[in-house]
Amino acid sequence: MSRQTISNALNAPHRLRAETLERVTALIEELGYRPDQSARALKSGTRRIIAYPTPVDDPANPNPLMGGFLEAVVSAAGEAGYRILLVRPRPGQSQEQALDELIAGRTVDGFLLSDILRDDPRVAHLAAEGFPFAAFGRTEPGHPQSWVDVDSVQAVIELVGLLAARGHRKVAFLGSSSGQPWMDDRRDGFLAGVRRHGMAGQEFSVPGDDPGEIVAATRELLAGRARPTAIVAGGDWLALGVYAAARAEGVEIGADLALVAFDDLPVTAFLQPALTTVRLPLRRIAEALVSRLLRIVEDGVTPQAGLLLPGELVVRPSLGP
Amino acid sequence: MSRQTISNALNAPHRLRAETLERVTALIEELGYRPDQSARALKSGTRRIIAYPTPVDDPANPNPLMGGFLEAVVSAAGEAGYRILLVRPRPGQSQEQALDELIAGRTVDGFLLSDILRDDPRVAHLAAEGFPFAAFGRTEPGHPQSWVDVDSVQAVIELVGLLAARGHRKVAFLGSSSGQPWMDDRRDGFLAGVRRHGMAGQEFSVPGDDPGEIVAATRELLAGRARPTAIVAGGDWLALGVYAAARAEGVEIGADLALVAFDDLPVTAFLQPALTTVRLPLRRIAEALVSRLLRIVEDGVTPQAGLLLPGELVVRPSLGP
Repeated sequence: MSRQTISNALNAPHRLRAETLERVTALIEELGYRPDQSARALKSGTRRIIAYPTPVDDPANPNPLMGGFLEAVVSAAGEAGYRILLVRPRPGQSQEQALDELIAGRTVDGFLLSDILRDDPRVAHLAAEGFPFAAFGRTEPGHPQSWVDVDSVQAVIELVGLLAARGHRKVAFLGSSSGQPWMDDRRDGFLAGVRRHGMAGQEFSVPGDDPGEIVAATRELLAGRARPTAIVAGGDWLALGVYAAARAEGVEIGADLALVAFDDLPVTAFLQPALTTVRLPLRRIAEALVSRLLRIVEDGVTPQAGLLLPGELVVRPSLGP
Repeated sequence: MSRQTISNALNAPHRLRAETLERVTALIEELGYRPDQSARALKSGTRRIIAYPTPVDDPANPNPLMGGFLEAVVSAAGEAGYRILLVRPRPGQSQEQALDELIAGRTVDGFLLSDILRDDPRVAHLAAEGFPFAAFGRTEPGHPQSWVDVDSVQAVIELVGLLAARGHRKVAFLGSSSGQPWMDDRRDGFLAGVRRHGMAGQEFSVPGDDPGEIVAATRELLAGRARPTAIVAGGDWLALGVYAAARAEGVEIGADLALVAFDDLPVTAFLQPALTTVRLPLRRIAEALVSRLLRIVEDGVTPQAGLLLPGELVVRPSLGP
């Protein structure tokens, strides 16, 4: 058995056929061979570790998509023989200093970024350092285009199209006003759809993701004279507030009010009527992110263009008849 | 400035006073000193990395507590200068082989385990190897007692006490029958509470966490002749099904039916009436896990006894007047 085959079994198992991998693994097991990862890392310069800077969150009210995203990322990285290191700036450290420490310490092979903001300083810094990264969310032109994103604009245009086809003329967009690019995309999709179908569109926003504020703002809209016949919620979390507000105002979703949203959070399975929403292809996103990152790390090839994946419309009774 | 002070600033920042740390950090920044983590790891034998074996999950329906737990763990580990490496057996690898690979490769300083099962093979293996670990969930007697858990039994006894004080005599426990120790604890708490107050207690179970099955099982109970006046749900996820079932059966929670549960999931903030439940002290759990693990890693001291933390009862209108 060649040294390269054994090295592949240990370092790049995906390059071997299943039966070869099995034979090598059995042999390694039999001989009790244990490579010291630190010595190996010093020699080869690779750690088989991807750093994921975890967004700061509230343990009592975390981003409801985070658990599923991490699961998909761990799974996709694992398939390629890599592990995920959760990283965060130390107290007093800037984002850039935290990245520098990991780069300079040669702790990781590359970064996987999420929650990309406009002019995200992490993207600018990694681009300047020439260090491998892949981003869930678009990077600016001029920066490496190693990103993957969901085509939220198109998905929301399609949601509005579904409402137009059912005769709705007066629709509202419920968004959060925190300036996240993904929320802006969904708002842009709403505005584009409304223009395309000549509908009357209004927007209302809540400052963050506080349930009480979402319910209060929606109740006000439903109780007002300008009540729309349909609401496009910028996320399922916001849509949960519409259900609560509609119950409180005696408005029946799916009959008096059409409701469509975005994310397909698991908890919406308990809603009555079930929610029309857009499912994020989390496994495909994670696989594309890992594969783009490893093309840079292993082959030195940076993608020339970003990858925009379609969201999947899931039509359920909240859309109405 | 002593070599030890500089070493502490890099390796154990929590040991220095804030002003000393700041001075050393400024100096390091000025000199552009970058330790190679792999070389350092070979020399010192510590990586400042904690491995967390992530339970396999479905990205489209992940454990709703995972995001918050990971946030608390990343935060607690970061405070102590450690990072979290998400690990999982490679395809074809057993749990034990995956642990061995990390131990033998000296990739991590210790393990943080969650979702501890009875006779958990990971606990047995790490105990046999004498490798540092801390567990969220009880380990068997005879194994290292480096665990932290929530006193679910006591918390559910208290929930039942709240129901008894409101005159309920006929109560039901809604659990899942998947044999998880934490669900069994909650069931044991229910049975103990029911005995203590001389109530009539019945149990009903769903096989897993499928929303449709939870709602169907609860509707059957509510429509039947043996309908209880109160339900203790083994988790908030199950309680979400009770809300849906109650609406479908025309039963008003907080009036016709008292409902109490466990976990305080963020999404319950949208429920009407609000849910009485038990909050897990996630930050305290994570801090205790990290501190117990690092006592073993850094000082070689294994705790003599496990740490049982109280759940926090959050009383809201679903309990009834």
